[in-house]
Amino acid sequence: MSTNHYQFNVAMTCSACSGAIERVLNKLKPDVSKLDISLESQTVDVYTTLPYETILEKIQKTGKEVKSGKTL
Amino acid sequence: MSTNHYQFNVAMTCSACSGAIERVLNKLKPDVSKLDISLESQTVDVYTTLPYETILEKIQKTGKEVKSGKTL
Repeated sequence: MSTNHYQFNVAMTCSACSGAIERVLNKLKPDVSKLDISLESQTVDVYTTLPYETILEKIQKTGKEVKSGKTL
Repeated sequence: MSTNHYQFNVAMTCSACSGAIERVLNKLKPDVSKLDISLESQTVDVYTTLPYETILEKIQKTGKEVKSGKTL
């Protein structure tokens, strides 16, 4: 399966905010092959074979506000 | 059904951390009748007809570390 690159704009205030998202998405390994979370730019970059909706729902279940998302 | 009171000790660093947990648990209303989240004491008090495990899993899916939990 090919790997997709999704980028989400997520409201994260502190390192525990970004850490929570990292923890949740890391559970999807190895289906998530790479993860790049930036508190500074408020972005979550996910490289995965999983569908966009699956990743979006996982992030939304953290209770964090997903402001936007796109496939790159 | 009777209402249970569960108390969880959750690692929360900022108001966005506690806000995320609040948002997730508020989705369980009306099965969650009352919610009391304290960033200061690092506690999440939940009054609900739902089982302990259901609430625990919901909090864990936020990616926050649940240090302990009990029924009061």
